[in-house]
Amino acid sequence: MNLTRRHALAGAAALATAPLFPALPAKAAAPAVGKQAASFYRYKVGDAEVTVVSDGSVTFPLGDTFVLNAKKDEVNAALAKAFRPVDKMTIFFGPIVINNGGKLIVVDTGNGPGGFTGSKGANGQFANNLVAAGIDPKAVDMVVISHFHADHINGLLTADNESAFPNAEVLVPSTEWKYFMDDGEMGKQTTDRMKGVFSNARRVFDAGLKKKVTPYEWGKEIAPGLNSVSTIGHTPGHTSFVLASGADTVFIQSDVTNDPDLFVRNPGWHLMFDQDPDQAETTRRKVFDMVSADKMKVQGFHYPFPGRANIEKDGTGYRWVPAPWNPSI
Amino acid sequence: MNLTRRHALAGAAALATAPLFPALPAKAAAPAVGKQAASFYRYKVGDAEVTVVSDGSVTFPLGDTFVLNAKKDEVNAALAKAFRPVDKMTIFFGPIVINNGGKLIVVDTGNGPGGFTGSKGANGQFANNLVAAGIDPKAVDMVVISHFHADHINGLLTADNESAFPNAEVLVPSTEWKYFMDDGEMGKQTTDRMKGVFSNARRVFDAGLKKKVTPYEWGKEIAPGLNSVSTIGHTPGHTSFVLASGADTVFIQSDVTNDPDLFVRNPGWHLMFDQDPDQAETTRRKVFDMVSADKMKVQGFHYPFPGRANIEKDGTGYRWVPAPWNPSI
Repeated sequence: MNLTRRHALAGAAALATAPLFPALPAKAAAPAVGKQAASFYRYKVGDAEVTVVSDGSVTFPLGDTFVLNAKKDEVNAALAKAFRPVDKMTIFFGPIVINNGGKLIVVDTGNGPGGFTGSKGANGQFANNLVAAGIDPKAVDMVVISHFHADHINGLLTADNESAFPNAEVLVPSTEWKYFMDDGEMGKQTTDRMKGVFSNARRVFDAGLKKKVTPYEWGKEIAPGLNSVSTIGHTPGHTSFVLASGADTVFIQSDVTNDPDLFVRNPGWHLMFDQDPDQAETTRRKVFDMVSADKMKVQGFHYPFPGRANIEKDGTGYRWVPAPWNPSI
Repeated sequence: MNLTRRHALAGAAALATAPLFPALPAKAAAPAVGKQAASFYRYKVGDAEVTVVSDGSVTFPLGDTFVLNAKKDEVNAALAKAFRPVDKMTIFFGPIVINNGGKLIVVDTGNGPGGFTGSKGANGQFANNLVAAGIDPKAVDMVVISHFHADHINGLLTADNESAFPNAEVLVPSTEWKYFMDDGEMGKQTTDRMKGVFSNARRVFDAGLKKKVTPYEWGKEIAPGLNSVSTIGHTPGHTSFVLASGADTVFIQSDVTNDPDLFVRNPGWHLMFDQDPDQAETTRRKVFDMVSADKMKVQGFHYPFPGRANIEKDGTGYRWVPAPWNPSI
């Protein structure tokens, strides 16, 4: 056994007869890499291959109204209980890609090249991570949209306002489409936020996609193995999906909850982005009662990456249990 | 709004005046990728950059003695409670790399090119994932070993029995080194497993590294920011580490527990690989009392990737709460 200078200096003696460890050649310090792994993750649902492709995250100061019916102190307590920083909120974005029945299907598209307002860099990563995951956007056959909020539809377009998936059919919830394309509904809006949701949806679908979309109904198999489920409240046409292949399923919950540490734990809490908060709560409880009773895994768009989890009842709410990462599929 | 054949066939009518959606050109189905992401993950501890680099996992039938003092039914119940399959056990392997103070430091090395006995392919991924993470093994300055089990030391060598980190100083726990290099201790062994641990340690350190190692003591800063902590029981020289930079720390728990769903939940359970199970339990309770009281994050070698978690008391045991994945650092 050899002895290094470090060892000798530390005074851990008694081995003095061993020869000195040869000095290593001087070398430059390795610079820190400073870059996260391209965040994608694969799993199988029966024969279907699911790839979760992160669009990144956004962090902002926690406001008094992020949860409409809970005090900021209560929200901070829920964050602290989950070992997360208080007084700020991080929201994650996780579109998925499904390869099943010969079709390559994107479900929701992230914030797009512009990123979440004022936060470019930390999100809008979907397009790059998709390429890192070995998926060519030109090979995508179908893009399925759950609802028309910007973090789900803005990735439909490139920075040049072209279709990001030029060979794909774009499927949208029929109810959502009718609502957001209705000039009367748009005229009723009184808040800047809701006016913005309408105008952004029209920007994407009118200017960008020239209205080349396929509306879909609920309760249908809208793509191979992918079944649409009405989960309204978050928006009037908000949709979730059951992906089924063989005996295996996953419930793609879209925005039934935003952050699970807040809204899975506290299903009665109302998110400021839920358009009809009471309906959203009813939907949330119904969905979580079902998936917890059936032990059906969920895939959550706003869950921390990779967003695959189990849900169990816990007191008056639920607990989410992330599925362990499988290092090989 | 256009209407596709799919839509028309589904009978969702009422929009018949819209032109038909132009037929997409026929294209070949995109093949499933069938390959997991290279599993690495980065985070900062103060100025230090930590990269968790998965070595993969191994799955085997759950035996009656995997937990020495619990019935197989109880172990299955703990797995089911964590929404994991029963009657089998998956163990994950997660070495880390620390870039701090100008030094690139590997902590434990995984199963090496041969993989975990009989399971090549699903593990032994550390070397490949290291390259995917942008880390050149030739740039590694120090390799720090926690203890001498094969899944921690076999990655020290290449398939050609050469050093996998040719420019690195190899630091080993002094107590572990003395124990496993002692012929008298080796002669006392009565089980094939323990004889194998001794012979494998000697294979790696004698034949491979020609004993060019630096023993380190406990309670020292053995590399920039990396402090060694005695956590004996799993082996006679088993070591954990506190990485500290600025006000930030992480407790690198090595094998204080194996699978957290079993042994964090049930710290009194004795793993068949704990050489001194009673001492291992004492150590485990002491460590988890400390990290839960101090709200110190842990990095667990056998936790599901990426293995960064918080520990909280829960009844007679503890609960582990994975830290959310940060899609950018």
